[in-house]
Amino acid sequence: MEEVKVKVGQDGYSIYIGQHTLAQLGSLMGRNGLTGKALVLTDAQVGALYGEQVLGILAEAGFTAELFAVPPGEDSKSLAVAETVFSKAITMGLDRKSVIVALGGGVVGDLAGFIAATYLRGIPFVQVPTTLLAQVDSSVGGKVAVNHALGKNLIGAFYQPRLVLIDIALLQSLPERELASGLAEVIKYGIIEDADLFSYLQKNSRPVLAKEPEALQHIIKRSCEIKAAVVEQDEKENSLRMILNFGHTIGHAVEADTGFGLYSHGESVAIGMVGAASLSAALGLCSQETVDTIRCIIAQYNLPLGAPECTTDRLMPFLVRDKKAVGGKIHWVLVRSIGSVLIKDDVPPMTVDEILQEITC
Amino acid sequence: MEEVKVKVGQDGYSIYIGQHTLAQLGSLMGRNGLTGKALVLTDAQVGALYGEQVLGILAEAGFTAELFAVPPGEDSKSLAVAETVFSKAITMGLDRKSVIVALGGGVVGDLAGFIAATYLRGIPFVQVPTTLLAQVDSSVGGKVAVNHALGKNLIGAFYQPRLVLIDIALLQSLPERELASGLAEVIKYGIIEDADLFSYLQKNSRPVLAKEPEALQHIIKRSCEIKAAVVEQDEKENSLRMILNFGHTIGHAVEADTGFGLYSHGESVAIGMVGAASLSAALGLCSQETVDTIRCIIAQYNLPLGAPECTTDRLMPFLVRDKKAVGGKIHWVLVRSIGSVLIKDDVPPMTVDEILQEITC
Repeated sequence: MEEVKVKVGQDGYSIYIGQHTLAQLGSLMGRNGLTGKALVLTDAQVGALYGEQVLGILAEAGFTAELFAVPPGEDSKSLAVAETVFSKAITMGLDRKSVIVALGGGVVGDLAGFIAATYLRGIPFVQVPTTLLAQVDSSVGGKVAVNHALGKNLIGAFYQPRLVLIDIALLQSLPERELASGLAEVIKYGIIEDADLFSYLQKNSRPVLAKEPEALQHIIKRSCEIKAAVVEQDEKENSLRMILNFGHTIGHAVEADTGFGLYSHGESVAIGMVGAASLSAALGLCSQETVDTIRCIIAQYNLPLGAPECTTDRLMPFLVRDKKAVGGKIHWVLVRSIGSVLIKDDVPPMTVDEILQEITC
Repeated sequence: MEEVKVKVGQDGYSIYIGQHTLAQLGSLMGRNGLTGKALVLTDAQVGALYGEQVLGILAEAGFTAELFAVPPGEDSKSLAVAETVFSKAITMGLDRKSVIVALGGGVVGDLAGFIAATYLRGIPFVQVPTTLLAQVDSSVGGKVAVNHALGKNLIGAFYQPRLVLIDIALLQSLPERELASGLAEVIKYGIIEDADLFSYLQKNSRPVLAKEPEALQHIIKRSCEIKAAVVEQDEKENSLRMILNFGHTIGHAVEADTGFGLYSHGESVAIGMVGAASLSAALGLCSQETVDTIRCIIAQYNLPLGAPECTTDRLMPFLVRDKKAVGGKIHWVLVRSIGSVLIKDDVPPMTVDEILQEITC
């Protein structure tokens, strides 16, 4: 088991990464000062697979634990579903020292984090991400949220977990397409920060896609380290943290325009990364070779390069409404070379238009 | 205009207190680095009185301001009403630098603070409390929340405003009973922390109840100073801040048992302070003279000394369920002498029972 420290907040916290680490959840929680009652929030699918096991592990470590499963899928990230979880928390008598454990993918993690951040004005929480996407992205960094009918993740907080437990063995049950979705974020880390990780991904697509533990452990650990380093420097997303949104500006627009279902989050980000790379080249910030390298790795990992279902006219309004826009300006994360990006808020709309034409045809 | 600094969070913030300070709201917001769009959250009653005036003041200072009024009363502190405010915030295009202005009493302040704490994971907010209770208590210290069907203030955050503007002139339109409700909290500050304030209240009930500006200014400023000092030492209510709950343990139970309507918050706290004082004497922590002094000032300010509508059996479960209870233990704030309190979590239930009998007969 490897440990990545995240130095954020008062005391910071650790991400534990390894094979079959789930069995150590209770003891790790105890070692991190947690005790008493624990509400394990999960979805019906993940709960059916690992719910009983987790309750057993927590009981053995002395916790009084109960399970609450929400319906799988993005619709559970709502204030209405949150209200049902609050009811459960109240009736089982969770107090300020009790723990919320998020057992699931990004939806469960974001919802559980929002509950933990706001129940009694904040109680401890623990992330046990069960998808690659959640392991390398949403479970690290403390961004928690629910959706509003008018937009995703509009209601939330910056609220750090007490620990994150990543069990690579859980990925064995993950469908191929969800694995690829997580890999899009791993590719992103390579592009924004680490040419070595990028090159590892280029050379090792076979073991990665075959879910070989050693390969997964390497890319997950490196992704967590990169994200932790960025978040440590800018927890509240005032500047540097924005680089984590590479590919997300167009990605969010594609997701929204296709009704959050046609493309997974990672697939949308892949399309967005192609767009952001092309935009960078069009602005003379990177070479066409860099764009081709990025297109190549995305294809290598079975991720889409464009969204022919979308149109420029429909995508444009979503870009402007993106929640990272400040004063109506879009903050574009653009690439200089593999491992190095920059932020620009003065990209001419004409150029953006051309790129959107490209990725939607 | 006087200024009380609250050294909490990254930069701290100021409470501005004076007569007719409302006119300076826009310029003070500007001086505190705020700019752009502002959503003024109020209730229908306060909005009718001061809404247009505040929009004018903000427009003059360069803000693009809009008003949103929720129905008056505690029922507006719900996730459902919060959702309507989020919709307004989204459709008017508030971004991360925009401001939420709370114009109203505790309900509006708590709701607005919850919105500000969670919209886009937190945007700036400003408190303009219009009741005495909000001016001396809820607007200071950053506790924001909405209610859940199963209990009050169970969903919220610790989230500090960028500034608090107290205009004493606004209290001239405040009904007598609401004034008394706020005065209960002022009396509390005297008991927990400041014998001088207590003695000022004893000697000046006439000018205070007549709303003489000088008297109001004095007790409001002193109350804010005391609360600020406590909050600075313990923002998240781990220990010291609990002393602010003097009178609130029984007070909350009385409020809940009588359906949040029969007694105002301040009236319930007054009853709770009588109960807590009697409990302190029963435990040998203070003299009967101290209890009498407290009963006397509460009567002097037209506040109730007991709740004959309640019964011990009904109050008891509310005490245990209070959100400050940790591991099922009630943290009692008890009085040693005027200006000095202590916290005890091992009060025998029998003694509590006796005191509840006393205040309900």
